[in-house]
Amino acid sequence: MFPELKEKGERARQAARRLAVLDTATKNNTLKAIAETIMEREPEILSANDHDIDAGQEAGLSDAYLDRLLLTVHRLEGIAQDVLAVAGLPDPVGETFDARTLPNGLRISKRRVPVGVIGVIYESRPNVTVDISALCLKSGNAAILRGGKEAVHTNRALAGAIAEACKKSAVPEGAIQLFQSQDRALVKEMLTANQYIDMIIPRGGAGLHKFALNNATIPVITGGIGVCHVYVDRNADPDKAIPIIHNAKVQRPTVCNAMDTLLIHRDVAQDLLPKIAQDLAGAGVEMRCEQGALQILMGHPSVRSAGPDDFDTEFLSLVLAIKVVESIDEALDHIHQHSTQHSDAIITENYSTAMRFINEIDSAAVYVNASTRFTDGGQFGLGAEVAVSTQRLHARGPMGLKELTTYKWVVFGEGQIRE
Amino acid sequence: MFPELKEKGERARQAARRLAVLDTATKNNTLKAIAETIMEREPEILSANDHDIDAGQEAGLSDAYLDRLLLTVHRLEGIAQDVLAVAGLPDPVGETFDARTLPNGLRISKRRVPVGVIGVIYESRPNVTVDISALCLKSGNAAILRGGKEAVHTNRALAGAIAEACKKSAVPEGAIQLFQSQDRALVKEMLTANQYIDMIIPRGGAGLHKFALNNATIPVITGGIGVCHVYVDRNADPDKAIPIIHNAKVQRPTVCNAMDTLLIHRDVAQDLLPKIAQDLAGAGVEMRCEQGALQILMGHPSVRSAGPDDFDTEFLSLVLAIKVVESIDEALDHIHQHSTQHSDAIITENYSTAMRFINEIDSAAVYVNASTRFTDGGQFGLGAEVAVSTQRLHARGPMGLKELTTYKWVVFGEGQIRE
Repeated sequence: MFPELKEKGERARQAARRLAVLDTATKNNTLKAIAETIMEREPEILSANDHDIDAGQEAGLSDAYLDRLLLTVHRLEGIAQDVLAVAGLPDPVGETFDARTLPNGLRISKRRVPVGVIGVIYESRPNVTVDISALCLKSGNAAILRGGKEAVHTNRALAGAIAEACKKSAVPEGAIQLFQSQDRALVKEMLTANQYIDMIIPRGGAGLHKFALNNATIPVITGGIGVCHVYVDRNADPDKAIPIIHNAKVQRPTVCNAMDTLLIHRDVAQDLLPKIAQDLAGAGVEMRCEQGALQILMGHPSVRSAGPDDFDTEFLSLVLAIKVVESIDEALDHIHQHSTQHSDAIITENYSTAMRFINEIDSAAVYVNASTRFTDGGQFGLGAEVAVSTQRLHARGPMGLKELTTYKWVVFGEGQIRE
Repeated sequence: MFPELKEKGERARQAARRLAVLDTATKNNTLKAIAETIMEREPEILSANDHDIDAGQEAGLSDAYLDRLLLTVHRLEGIAQDVLAVAGLPDPVGETFDARTLPNGLRISKRRVPVGVIGVIYESRPNVTVDISALCLKSGNAAILRGGKEAVHTNRALAGAIAEACKKSAVPEGAIQLFQSQDRALVKEMLTANQYIDMIIPRGGAGLHKFALNNATIPVITGGIGVCHVYVDRNADPDKAIPIIHNAKVQRPTVCNAMDTLLIHRDVAQDLLPKIAQDLAGAGVEMRCEQGALQILMGHPSVRSAGPDDFDTEFLSLVLAIKVVESIDEALDHIHQHSTQHSDAIITENYSTAMRFINEIDSAAVYVNASTRFTDGGQFGLGAEVAVSTQRLHARGPMGLKELTTYKWVVFGEGQIRE
């Protein structure tokens, strides 16, 4: 085992024990101190970021990549503001639920407690360093961070600011730690360090999630990958369908809750699909159509024939796969076969069809007459978003602070023994 | 991939989709039919069991092992009764919670849905075949079962009875399937068949749990291993301490929630420990003592010196490790270091000490003045027990039907789009 993993793992375990019983006021004051220290160290942090950006340009990173890496005064202020926002959220730790008194007089309840030590593996965005540290701290968890090598100087500067703020407070040393080593083998070891880490959160693309899932013995929060569907039913209201489709595809195409596949019922396709296509083409959307849709949209400059993988692709860009279906059953079957169980929507005015869709589609979020773009911790009122889970256990869909906790059973007795 | 895994996996997936929307009455009627069919086929099942018992005797299996394998008319009736009891439990599927209306008018809620397909890997007890099938069916999950080879004929007879009962009802074919192949390589493949299985439940000893955890990419419910502590504080009431300790160690020593380590405060050890030892010795308990406890109990015929591993051992027998501690802090430290986070108890009349123990010990169940033996789905009022989880995510401690479910977010809109 890497000595750094052993050393940081042991410190995180010790810190987690103390963090679990830290009061909310202390945690909030530490978060405020983190926000202040980040702003105080602005010149140092931005200079470290310059260093990473220069190295990235030399290494020939794409403009999109460099933009994710870039910090500005404005962005850094945004990061500090987000930390203050976390300080303002309710503390999930200590909540008592499912309380009852058993026939033998035992008083039992569940009490919300932190998960313990969270291992975070992420790529280029340096804001994750601060963002996830604040969320872990607020929920009483220790965090061990492994950022991408392209952001190494920025991450160190940010982690330094966090460490200094923690040092001045009652937060134990080792609460938030950033790996110094950039060795990829360390990531693999991290995924099986069950004695030190209780949960792995990968923040990045599909490749990172898959790598974590395949190599971890620690539970991994997988998610963030969405092949999302909108089904326009024969009873759809066009005045809802067109704006929702536009919003789901165009408003922010690079994210996981954007629409990838449009299904439309044959009975309305002839009339409605050309209007939808005109709207989408105006926004620069390329449409990849299977046979039925192609016949209706033939000749449209933004339309081409769908390839074999187009109905299983998260495009993350202004590309949309389109298919005409014969019935709600065909729509349900298609979604069952192709959905990544992230977010799927139906547009319909028919009550029974809406209910069937909601009942039978088993995705993290299922919608009637609304854009898939709402699948988001902030939009759903969780106050913060740790991740969007597309796995089925522990938490599904947007995860907030509560989803960084577990519970223990607390039992108060007066000498009870089992018969 | 084993053809049997592919075939059964695909059938289970199809079945799960239909099971998820099956009404409670149909599920309950099917459970009743399973109980009836098991009793109707009693001669066939017992004869299959004879076959397994004969083979086990020839193979030189231990008496304890053969006893776990053995079915009698009485035991089979008990198994059928347990299925009827599951029919009587509330159906967790469909429960709606955390419902609210967002400022934009979207109505969002979480709805409880089945996990999907549960893979169960178990050892000699044939009752697991029926027990887990009933729990999965009631919670709307499909199940793929892999029983131990020693019980192969019994398991096939029981699975045959279940299949026949399902066939007569609206439960889809493929809802409950038993692997025919006894190849161990199949188990390993099962653990990474993420496309077919959503959750793995190992039912067996520590070796099986570890094997599943180390080889699975599917989430595994680990648990059932308990190094459980009882700490007798300086303010303990002896009239509570002695019966609780007796109960926690003696009432059923072979199970995971039985006490393995007794910690006792130095201030009361001199007086109380000999009384405890006398009681335990009378019940046939062997006591393995560290230095401080040994000095007090020296010369007692059931007492010996503790070895280096005794404070990390789940004895599953009438053996107890004993240590004298100087303070509540030493007790907390010892438990933090040695506990498997299953069940730990304090005996005290001191309010603040009780609160510290409850707050600082982070086990699935923490007790004040009660026996650790209560950590059990039936005792905790869950109606049934799927497993006792010692992991931290998804569910902790006794798991009932609810813990075989997850949730989806249901969103009702009127055309909302994201700004």
